[in-house]
Amino acid sequence: MTSYVKIPSHLRPSDPQGPDLLTQERESASFDVKELTLLLYGIKDLERYHKILNIIENDPVFDKTNIYFMGRDKLFEYTIKKEKRLVQLIKENKWNVEELQYAEWFLDMPGPFGAHRGMFIPTLIGHGTEEQKKKFLIPAKNYQIIGCYAQTELGHGSNVQGLETTSTYIPETDEFEIHSPFLTSSKWWIGGLGRTATHAIVMAQLKSNGKDYGPHPFIVQIRDLETHLPLPGITIGDIGPKFGFNATDNGFMLFEHVRIPRFNMLSKYCQIEKATGKYISPPNDKINYGIMVLIRSLIVTGVRVTLARAATIAIRYSAIRRQFIDKDEPKKLKDGRIVETSVLDYTMQQYRLFPIIAQSYACFFTSKAMNNLYTKYMEQSSDGNYSLLADIHASSSGLKSLTTTMAVESIEDCRRACGGHGYSSFSGFVKFYQDYLPNTTWEGDNYVLTQQTARYLMKTFRKVTKNPKKYASQIGTNPTITYILQYLNEPNQKCMATTPLNFNNQEFQLKAFRHRIAYLLANAVDQIDNQKKSWNSMLVEINRISHAHCQYLLVQNFITALQYNSQQQINDESLNILHNSTSLKKVMTSLCNLFVLHTMEKDVGEFLESEYLTSSQARLLRTQVYNLLKEIRPNAVSLVDAFLIPDALLSSALGRYDGKVYETMIDWASKEPLNGIILNIDPNNNNTILEKAKL
Amino acid sequence: MTSYVKIPSHLRPSDPQGPDLLTQERESASFDVKELTLLLYGIKDLERYHKILNIIENDPVFDKTNIYFMGRDKLFEYTIKKEKRLVQLIKENKWNVEELQYAEWFLDMPGPFGAHRGMFIPTLIGHGTEEQKKKFLIPAKNYQIIGCYAQTELGHGSNVQGLETTSTYIPETDEFEIHSPFLTSSKWWIGGLGRTATHAIVMAQLKSNGKDYGPHPFIVQIRDLETHLPLPGITIGDIGPKFGFNATDNGFMLFEHVRIPRFNMLSKYCQIEKATGKYISPPNDKINYGIMVLIRSLIVTGVRVTLARAATIAIRYSAIRRQFIDKDEPKKLKDGRIVETSVLDYTMQQYRLFPIIAQSYACFFTSKAMNNLYTKYMEQSSDGNYSLLADIHASSSGLKSLTTTMAVESIEDCRRACGGHGYSSFSGFVKFYQDYLPNTTWEGDNYVLTQQTARYLMKTFRKVTKNPKKYASQIGTNPTITYILQYLNEPNQKCMATTPLNFNNQEFQLKAFRHRIAYLLANAVDQIDNQKKSWNSMLVEINRISHAHCQYLLVQNFITALQYNSQQQINDESLNILHNSTSLKKVMTSLCNLFVLHTMEKDVGEFLESEYLTSSQARLLRTQVYNLLKEIRPNAVSLVDAFLIPDALLSSALGRYDGKVYETMIDWASKEPLNGIILNIDPNNNNTILEKAKL
Repeated sequence: MTSYVKIPSHLRPSDPQGPDLLTQERESASFDVKELTLLLYGIKDLERYHKILNIIENDPVFDKTNIYFMGRDKLFEYTIKKEKRLVQLIKENKWNVEELQYAEWFLDMPGPFGAHRGMFIPTLIGHGTEEQKKKFLIPAKNYQIIGCYAQTELGHGSNVQGLETTSTYIPETDEFEIHSPFLTSSKWWIGGLGRTATHAIVMAQLKSNGKDYGPHPFIVQIRDLETHLPLPGITIGDIGPKFGFNATDNGFMLFEHVRIPRFNMLSKYCQIEKATGKYISPPNDKINYGIMVLIRSLIVTGVRVTLARAATIAIRYSAIRRQFIDKDEPKKLKDGRIVETSVLDYTMQQYRLFPIIAQSYACFFTSKAMNNLYTKYMEQSSDGNYSLLADIHASSSGLKSLTTTMAVESIEDCRRACGGHGYSSFSGFVKFYQDYLPNTTWEGDNYVLTQQTARYLMKTFRKVTKNPKKYASQIGTNPTITYILQYLNEPNQKCMATTPLNFNNQEFQLKAFRHRIAYLLANAVDQIDNQKKSWNSMLVEINRISHAHCQYLLVQNFITALQYNSQQQINDESLNILHNSTSLKKVMTSLCNLFVLHTMEKDVGEFLESEYLTSSQARLLRTQVYNLLKEIRPNAVSLVDAFLIPDALLSSALGRYDGKVYETMIDWASKEPLNGIILNIDPNNNNTILEKAKL
Repeated sequence: MTSYVKIPSHLRPSDPQGPDLLTQERESASFDVKELTLLLYGIKDLERYHKILNIIENDPVFDKTNIYFMGRDKLFEYTIKKEKRLVQLIKENKWNVEELQYAEWFLDMPGPFGAHRGMFIPTLIGHGTEEQKKKFLIPAKNYQIIGCYAQTELGHGSNVQGLETTSTYIPETDEFEIHSPFLTSSKWWIGGLGRTATHAIVMAQLKSNGKDYGPHPFIVQIRDLETHLPLPGITIGDIGPKFGFNATDNGFMLFEHVRIPRFNMLSKYCQIEKATGKYISPPNDKINYGIMVLIRSLIVTGVRVTLARAATIAIRYSAIRRQFIDKDEPKKLKDGRIVETSVLDYTMQQYRLFPIIAQSYACFFTSKAMNNLYTKYMEQSSDGNYSLLADIHASSSGLKSLTTTMAVESIEDCRRACGGHGYSSFSGFVKFYQDYLPNTTWEGDNYVLTQQTARYLMKTFRKVTKNPKKYASQIGTNPTITYILQYLNEPNQKCMATTPLNFNNQEFQLKAFRHRIAYLLANAVDQIDNQKKSWNSMLVEINRISHAHCQYLLVQNFITALQYNSQQQINDESLNILHNSTSLKKVMTSLCNLFVLHTMEKDVGEFLESEYLTSSQARLLRTQVYNLLKEIRPNAVSLVDAFLIPDALLSSALGRYDGKVYETMIDWASKEPLNGIILNIDPNNNNTILEKAKL
């Protein structure tokens, strides 16, 4: 890449040097970083990781050095090239799903083919008949057609039942007529639709014989395969620039009485009978929920690596960045010179950053637990047993809401913890944050979702309260029933801690979170059932309930992982590694304590209000949080190293593994294309550019 | 502007229509919107507002319709054009400072000339001798030279004392030698430096006769006035793309033994004597603080309009956007059809948005109070009386930190409250948020600043505790002394509220905030003085203290404004309007209560921990917050209308005054330039673009 500014080559940063500082940090670790990495990935995935990274890093098409300088037009063209190259690699290397996932992670490129792979193909697989798969799935897998998933409309998002696009059965011709009656019926936000897709799965209100059957999916060819122009009656466009995701062509689409064959209604579960137009309804409505649960559990897994990526940049840079001399404890170089204190040594910086490392590990154990539960559910449901569904649907909804909001806030906290340089695109935070943001809205708006969680929890609370004995056997296995019964038995439970260290007691910790969620729940049910408050008037409390429940799940899953002991048979690679290493177990215990106590402290009002904690205990709790920050300090850099986020993904001058922060900042700046022009600044001369300069 | 997609012209949004909904909302107001607008602006400023808006709106150079589609290169060129046009208008219309401020606000264009007007010229005025002004200020005001302010370096921001650039006096030639000894010494983030400025005020470590005198300002010509190329020994470049501010050329700069005449050290207050190199020190160091206080008070004023702008978009769109049918209270059209409920009717949405309206009004009264205090200080200081300085410096630092963090969070809360469409650039939130963000870092990092505030408060606490009687006379005039003395007299004060409505009592409210800050302060002083905790270990508490103090100031200023009565002589246009209108006073009282109680509720842990509130009172408090939301609901749209944020500034499809949300969204989308290309998506064909299409 062209440098437009010649930087004097003899200059280097003032001492101490970044690489030396990171080396020192790495030497102070109390555990084996490679071992922790193995705990996180497992042997097989680690091999996969390196194999794929090697290919991606060495392919010139995927070179990211230019990306921060591109406007939307260039970025989009570049992304199409990357998408095409990725397809070639998938075919050449015969990548499986897991391998492709690694490739997509490293590429970090939400692009126009994303919905094709992530939504169009899975929906065909899940809802298509064998004939439909023959017709659409095979060309889709070969990228002869590109699909998108058109559900959201200009006027409707979360309320799918309210969609306006119609699909009316016309018995005379055995067709459906897809139509957009209003401007607000326009499909909107549809990834890959704007410029790319040839086909769409369109969610439309099914109408037949004058009756409405609600939203159903239809396959519609939307563009000519030769000219790539929209087919007659279909208006399509890209919806314009966004906060992030600008390499994706989110699109809009209007239909004017467009006919498709009856064959194109996705008919694995329900269909319209030929000629009669009779609606044949699905065997049960639990199928869709299974997929939703899976997608949400993947989002939680995504949170873990998102937090890891943000923390990696902020922690490494904070170890290198120095600011002010701490007069109580001045830092010296080996030659005795006093230098400014590393910002990572300031309590405030630790308080801002270390809990984010802990959050990432908390999400690791919870996403494992979610996956295990999902697998169990899938086994049971194939035998027609759906008893787990309500619980895992409620918890996965709430966890999606809680953890994605946490991730967005934590990326931004990490960015701001990098001071001014966090605002530069070269920090690696800007595009990263912008592209991650939609996670709080899609797959269920984070506020709307909490209503689903709380509704289930309240139902359970009423059920258990009515007949506690019936549920006593589920104590210890069902977390919701456990905390409700404990609360009913002992509604005035108090925390017994008398020293900061007492707060490390895992039983104290679990009780605190159980008491708090049950208290909130009991109160809300009382207000609705006895004080006759409307659901709408309770929405703020409802949100609190969902968060408290899901924080409890995160806490419980982290603690449970640590509570195995080596006598037990463990069929889990990660837990085996954890429990065979004293040093790993020790550092994970510190992180678990920090996660639990920091979470508690942030919402201390609820623990005080539920009268589990007293005022003076709240102060002890806070002291213990600060003690844990000190405990974690020597391991901070190694803890983020263990996440193994490659430089190729970080794309960050601040977070790179080798610590060459300042050299990279100025090198990348010299490549800014604006540096290739010379301005005319005279206000009386309307010509703004004197000339394009070249070095 | 070109439309690339033809939208069927017969389509309109489904009922109810946006304009009708806003009309209904406006009809339900309990007060006169024009009267409230007058309260906010005053007669003179309102005239100025309309005069300037009329010019800006009708100048084709300032047309913003294209702006969301521009990459950095085009945006920068366009901004230079706007800057030049603005200079022409300033000269043609002879705008004064206030008029220019309105123009800059409406233009909403942080650009390359910003630092010239905002930093370079004011520093010349404040620190230049008469001869220096003659030489530099006159051409600067004529835009014959363009200046920037080069303080921050690649390795140093907040710690100005640690800057590395040196300026060494050379008696032999009567010059200074400006030099960058390290890569980290490079000036960095300097607005207008990258491509534009011809001159810079460079902050450099002054050295003379082998002694160091700390950072001082020097004027350096950095580019040739003809060729606009950097002068010999100076390396300059733009630092590259950022989260926002991409129309500004923030730059970097390295010096290699660059000589400037002794004359160029800004010498109003201190200088180097010719030949001897003797340092003549400034009369006192309080001058700089005065300017810093002023800049920070302007930032708080900026917060008010920032919050107003964000709330305007979110409230108007929430009145139009409908989602789900509230089963407890379904909404009907005039013709009886049940329609989905406006999201503004959901408690959660009100809880997210109404406090932001209240925050804006809180900032209005506090920025007025800060300005009054600043004026008083300037009067006193011209007589050599600096007694107010420590207090207003501490409070303005903390208020800058608290309110800008609040503004950033509130813009983002408003954006997310707009659901998916908040993510579109057309929401008007994206560029707005991105450009506002640096406010949390510049003019003092928001975390570092709170240390200054807390340090002063602790000092005061110690002073007052030692000798309470000495300070008794200042109860009621000095807020800090007032709450400290009240706490010392009654450290176990309790809240007397027994009903939700009791929380509207302004004396209860003030006591709550006084007790809480004094409690935090007493605790922190105890930990430092008696338990010998280090400053570093207390940084989290220090941040809390500053926030609690500044929240108290916001609360107190709001309540004080409402507590005037018509018997009193009021020399204040706004307060006169407020106290002559029962309806205005009523709605402002609701907003004040909401501001106070919502702030209290968000940090309820601290009020519980200080044992001012009991657990059951915390529940009453929350109930009262919900009651206030209901009270404010009918006035919501009119309250944001009163802010009078023009459509030209909002640049928002969602927030426009006429409510044509969906029509505008699709119209703007049709203009996305990507819609002018046709793709080749075949993975086996490396040509990505089939053709550039035109409608």
